[in-house]
Amino acid sequence: MGTLSSSAVEGTAAEVLVRADTLGAISEEPARLTRRLATPALARAGDLVARWMTEAGLTVRRDAIGNVVGRLGNADVPPLVLGSHLDTVPDAGRYDGALGILLALAVVQRLRARDALPDALEVAAFADEEGARFGVPYLGSSAYAGRFERDWLDLADVEGVTLRDALGELGGDPESLVSLPEPRLAGYLEAHIEQGPVLEREGFPVGVVSAIAGQTRAVLTIRGRPGHAGTSPMAGRHDALVAASELVLAVERYGRESDGLVATVGSLTVSPGASNVIPGEARLSLDVRHADDEALGQAVAGLRHAATRIVTTRGVELDWTTLQSTPAVELTPALRVRLASAVAAAGLEARSLASGAGHDAVVLARICPAAMLFVRCAGGISHDPRESVAQADVAVAIDVLEHAVVGA
Amino acid sequence: MGTLSSSAVEGTAAEVLVRADTLGAISEEPARLTRRLATPALARAGDLVARWMTEAGLTVRRDAIGNVVGRLGNADVPPLVLGSHLDTVPDAGRYDGALGILLALAVVQRLRARDALPDALEVAAFADEEGARFGVPYLGSSAYAGRFERDWLDLADVEGVTLRDALGELGGDPESLVSLPEPRLAGYLEAHIEQGPVLEREGFPVGVVSAIAGQTRAVLTIRGRPGHAGTSPMAGRHDALVAASELVLAVERYGRESDGLVATVGSLTVSPGASNVIPGEARLSLDVRHADDEALGQAVAGLRHAATRIVTTRGVELDWTTLQSTPAVELTPALRVRLASAVAAAGLEARSLASGAGHDAVVLARICPAAMLFVRCAGGISHDPRESVAQADVAVAIDVLEHAVVGA
Repeated sequence: MGTLSSSAVEGTAAEVLVRADTLGAISEEPARLTRRLATPALARAGDLVARWMTEAGLTVRRDAIGNVVGRLGNADVPPLVLGSHLDTVPDAGRYDGALGILLALAVVQRLRARDALPDALEVAAFADEEGARFGVPYLGSSAYAGRFERDWLDLADVEGVTLRDALGELGGDPESLVSLPEPRLAGYLEAHIEQGPVLEREGFPVGVVSAIAGQTRAVLTIRGRPGHAGTSPMAGRHDALVAASELVLAVERYGRESDGLVATVGSLTVSPGASNVIPGEARLSLDVRHADDEALGQAVAGLRHAATRIVTTRGVELDWTTLQSTPAVELTPALRVRLASAVAAAGLEARSLASGAGHDAVVLARICPAAMLFVRCAGGISHDPRESVAQADVAVAIDVLEHAVVGA
Repeated sequence: MGTLSSSAVEGTAAEVLVRADTLGAISEEPARLTRRLATPALARAGDLVARWMTEAGLTVRRDAIGNVVGRLGNADVPPLVLGSHLDTVPDAGRYDGALGILLALAVVQRLRARDALPDALEVAAFADEEGARFGVPYLGSSAYAGRFERDWLDLADVEGVTLRDALGELGGDPESLVSLPEPRLAGYLEAHIEQGPVLEREGFPVGVVSAIAGQTRAVLTIRGRPGHAGTSPMAGRHDALVAASELVLAVERYGRESDGLVATVGSLTVSPGASNVIPGEARLSLDVRHADDEALGQAVAGLRHAATRIVTTRGVELDWTTLQSTPAVELTPALRVRLASAVAAAGLEARSLASGAGHDAVVLARICPAAMLFVRCAGGISHDPRESVAQADVAVAIDVLEHAVVGA
């Protein structure tokens, strides 16, 4: 392959950041970035990405869910796909999703400039990864992968609008999604901000994702006995919040004691919730993740045991409802090695790390080799307007992806 | 004094319970008992109590806040006052407040029947003890005691209606409350359900209240750092809920380790409160009570110290806002002895106990000797439709109060 020009890549990185600003201004809401599936804002963002794809010499197609895909090269050759998602959570940052699409476009531009394009390549901008509107993630990449389920058309948003009606209103044919064929792909490469602090803490601009963590989500309800806070002696109380607090600390302890495990209680509500009434009920969420399914299973079983011990000791009741239990997804070793080699070619150490968050690569990994490159983000902050990436890190990511594509 | 007839007192007790049912049916709401200050429901309940007072031979007067007071005997003699409050919390039981008024009426009936009435006696039904509508308790007894503050007329309920307007609408002259004189009283005796489990647990039908606990209420806000639950390693988190949970357990520990102390976190809210986001902020209520002011002060200081240690260790921030700090009220020793003697005269052991809840006696104790008799209630439950007292215990309470009044 040809030599990469360092000053040119800096210029391309600067353009990527300008484009992220431009995309970030396309929102459902005036003062903050919210761009959910099947909204006019997402369609407008898709129009802009389609224009950029056309300018980069790609042939653009769009489907009824709003995926925007740019293709080049021999139509008979299974393409390598570069991409990420175009939707956002409410009050989002500009890089979660968008960065991966813009990096893919930058790589196409640079490869075209030095006449080094592969036989077949696609850039994909998926219409839904966050699941922010209809509660189910990966709707866009699932449609692209020929894995769209008919039931999903009946999903409704908080206002009761179904996915079917929302897509129909934008002029598409929702039913067509169900019959989309599974594409033949050479592989899927996704760049994404890390959304965590590891790369920043350890001084790496990019990292190669080893696996996407499995996740168990549960809702735990603890029922004790309410009572007057002034007239009920401490002995004999059955305070649901005190039991819940022990559980919150047990969850943290499990997370700390098991390497690679993250365990979080993000929500806790108390009822009746009056300052002068002993809590009769506490309801808490549990989110446990690990890149190794066995370690995840052990942690969840251990936490269940700990929860049972706590409620038994305190004479309160526990209802444990598992909402979700998804296994870890190991990314394809051969493609990871290719990414790692590209990182090494850029003169950097290839830090391997697991992803605690879900990504479109979870879906693509079911139908083709898949790998991911994480880009360092400031403070590990994501899903927040303060999301930020450094131009120099964007330049490294372009460099690495370019090497990885050409090294195919 | 004359001999008390045990079968007659059972009949009077039965009548008290029937009257409690009748009063309990007078509510602002159709399906549950809610009777707050300055509502037509409270006025109707006052009409009924006034009728019962008249039937008992008392001369009734009413003031602009809705207090109903029945008097007998020599107008120049400072009367002994028996009473309690007629208002309730929302979704209340039938005995909190009402029982004390009905017991007072029963005692008057019985003393009249055996021609043993004292020179001067009043029965008071106060219009507000709970503070359920305007947020400030004891508005009724404060008016009765000549301690009504003009500012209180500007208190507004959740719908923005001021106390002045609410009272005016019912036909009273709110301004007259400010100039009510402090009455000359021989003493105040209040019977009330315990609202706690001590008497039931120890097998006493009634108990003599030693003091009304002092109370400190505070709101504590803990600010940590929000983050993605999947991508933020456990090390380096600043989880506000985990810190709050340590604090909840410290509050319980303080309560358990200090005799007579009750300490409660009744409300806890987490933000952002999403299952996949590390809590950035937790806000909790603190309610600490003790009948001894020094013990209360030590506990609050200790908890503040513990809270500071927890947040410092965890690298989160604490804002502690004290909302209320009221000293304990010791009830008048001479009057307590008189009550205890009456309990002994009924052939029972006089169990002395502190009250964790506030009562009208707090206000009356500022202007005259005051004492309280607690009546056992089922399960210690109050502020709940399941509030319940046994007829036999009501009979004991009538017997004891009768002895106490005559023994003056």
